[in-house]
Amino acid sequence: MSIASREIRLKSRPVGLPVADNFQVASTTVPAPRAGEVLVRNLWMSVDPYMRGRMYDRQSYVPPFQIGEPLQGGAIGRVEASNHPDFKSGDLVESMNGWREAFVSVPGALQKLPNENVPPQAYLGVLGMPGLTAYSGLARIGEPKSGETVFVSGAGGAVGSIVCQIAKLRGCRVVASAGSDEKLDWLKSLGIDAAVNYKTCGNLLDAVQAAAPKGIDIYFDNVGGDHLEVALELARPFARFVECGMISAYNDTQPKPGPRNIIYVVGKSIKMQGFIVMNYWDMRDQFRTEMAQWIKDGSIKWQETVEHGIENAPKAFLSLFSGGNVGKMLVKLD
Amino acid sequence: MSIASREIRLKSRPVGLPVADNFQVASTTVPAPRAGEVLVRNLWMSVDPYMRGRMYDRQSYVPPFQIGEPLQGGAIGRVEASNHPDFKSGDLVESMNGWREAFVSVPGALQKLPNENVPPQAYLGVLGMPGLTAYSGLARIGEPKSGETVFVSGAGGAVGSIVCQIAKLRGCRVVASAGSDEKLDWLKSLGIDAAVNYKTCGNLLDAVQAAAPKGIDIYFDNVGGDHLEVALELARPFARFVECGMISAYNDTQPKPGPRNIIYVVGKSIKMQGFIVMNYWDMRDQFRTEMAQWIKDGSIKWQETVEHGIENAPKAFLSLFSGGNVGKMLVKLD
Repeated sequence: MSIASREIRLKSRPVGLPVADNFQVASTTVPAPRAGEVLVRNLWMSVDPYMRGRMYDRQSYVPPFQIGEPLQGGAIGRVEASNHPDFKSGDLVESMNGWREAFVSVPGALQKLPNENVPPQAYLGVLGMPGLTAYSGLARIGEPKSGETVFVSGAGGAVGSIVCQIAKLRGCRVVASAGSDEKLDWLKSLGIDAAVNYKTCGNLLDAVQAAAPKGIDIYFDNVGGDHLEVALELARPFARFVECGMISAYNDTQPKPGPRNIIYVVGKSIKMQGFIVMNYWDMRDQFRTEMAQWIKDGSIKWQETVEHGIENAPKAFLSLFSGGNVGKMLVKLD
Repeated sequence: MSIASREIRLKSRPVGLPVADNFQVASTTVPAPRAGEVLVRNLWMSVDPYMRGRMYDRQSYVPPFQIGEPLQGGAIGRVEASNHPDFKSGDLVESMNGWREAFVSVPGALQKLPNENVPPQAYLGVLGMPGLTAYSGLARIGEPKSGETVFVSGAGGAVGSIVCQIAKLRGCRVVASAGSDEKLDWLKSLGIDAAVNYKTCGNLLDAVQAAAPKGIDIYFDNVGGDHLEVALELARPFARFVECGMISAYNDTQPKPGPRNIIYVVGKSIKMQGFIVMNYWDMRDQFRTEMAQWIKDGSIKWQETVEHGIENAPKAFLSLFSGGNVGKMLVKLD
């Protein structure tokens, strides 16, 4: 039997900061699964900053969202009906079919969740894409060594907060920048060494320099803009810049000037390297094993900021750009 | 016995583009070598863009030049008198005691030239620091693979012209940018695939795009500025940026805005890595062996632009910033 569902469609391409009117809630009917197909009802969906990039009509590492079509993104659902032997009703599954309440899928687009002692939505955060992003970017590009100083921007978010904790586990000194004392107080409770509230600190360079008086060995960049310029200024020789994101620029309608001190890349022998999580997919098993252990022994903690109902998914997404989330931003759908 | 010599001293720190009046020719007396010392008369000295950085009074990877003191740099000389068993009159030696006609040294600061079938000044260029810079930066950061497209700025210079030729030997397609047709015609005669005269091409992005229609896999940067922005625009996923120098910025009195498209580092998974040649000193033996073979079999060629007499060393240095050199800029002192 078919079931009613709602989904969020891209109504118009945002120009600058996205607004609610760029999105549309639409009612739809999900057909009954055919032979070999599986019907899934979503429990949780993820909103992530990278999705802003898919709203531009341009070629990138993922194809752009299409006007009038439902958006896509990570989601955790429960199998409601299955015509495939590998799945049965009640199975929890991960998919990229977020932004909708229910869907029919071929099995290849679904991944069963392991039976670990974590809530299922952790697979959208600490044990999912943001966690692997933090883990792999820090390891492969940052190459942290004990005693080094790691500067993390966007440190209160889903990726940044995990980077801070892994860097501590690797023996590093961690300086975190975020836009609210609430986020920073939480990070301090997790053991970071110094915190900078970029909204209230006054001169960002002075504030980060005071927090990292010996300079920066690793910069994990989620923000770009002024933060990147400050990190270049304070970078020590052979610093590694893990270029994960530049959320400060995602809504620019005109390109902004880049860092005025980019020349330090030469003289300080800096490595500045961008990545997307798919580049390091080979680390996924190792990541899940190590992260599950860290969660179990209490070494890694996380927070969630939750909106409820598919109709609030655009609101959840928009709030990423005003720093409205502490930790992982999620939408609960059931 | 002591001998008369002349040397170039830093008279004042340049502000912006260096001018002749920042330098002073001084007559001096070089004392007779004491026990264990060696007296050397220089035959050739090198001027290199990196020396501009040492004229600022700031901490960097090498200490700043001091006002009133002779400048330093690579030089090739001939032993005139020796009180050390490892050196005898007539030996050709390399040192960092350029910018002067003669000097007394301890043996540890001298390196005897191997007896290869090249003119001695090649050890200031193709077989010396610029050659190793090209060889090691391209290998360690660029990691060229056959069939890839390499874009080289400052391609007519001592480093750039060697990068172009090594990249061809590695099976790459080479697009070179330089500021004169004379340089580019020479590079074309060496086998590069496409040439851009950045002074006459009009829109640099359009010109490089036409020369590299499939995009850029490796950018060997000697220039920075607009060239870096163009390379970011045309970079393919996983491009490597070998950040060797940014001569366009060496004389800036105010920091200029950086590349407006630095965000591509993230989405295109670009690695942008700076270096100085000392980082890859471990490649020196391998470099000298392979380069000597390439020279012998005609695979690598070079040009020199030569000024004569110590009094013209400042002129030689200044002309680096107006693109006055084809290939390696040298001063002949004997």
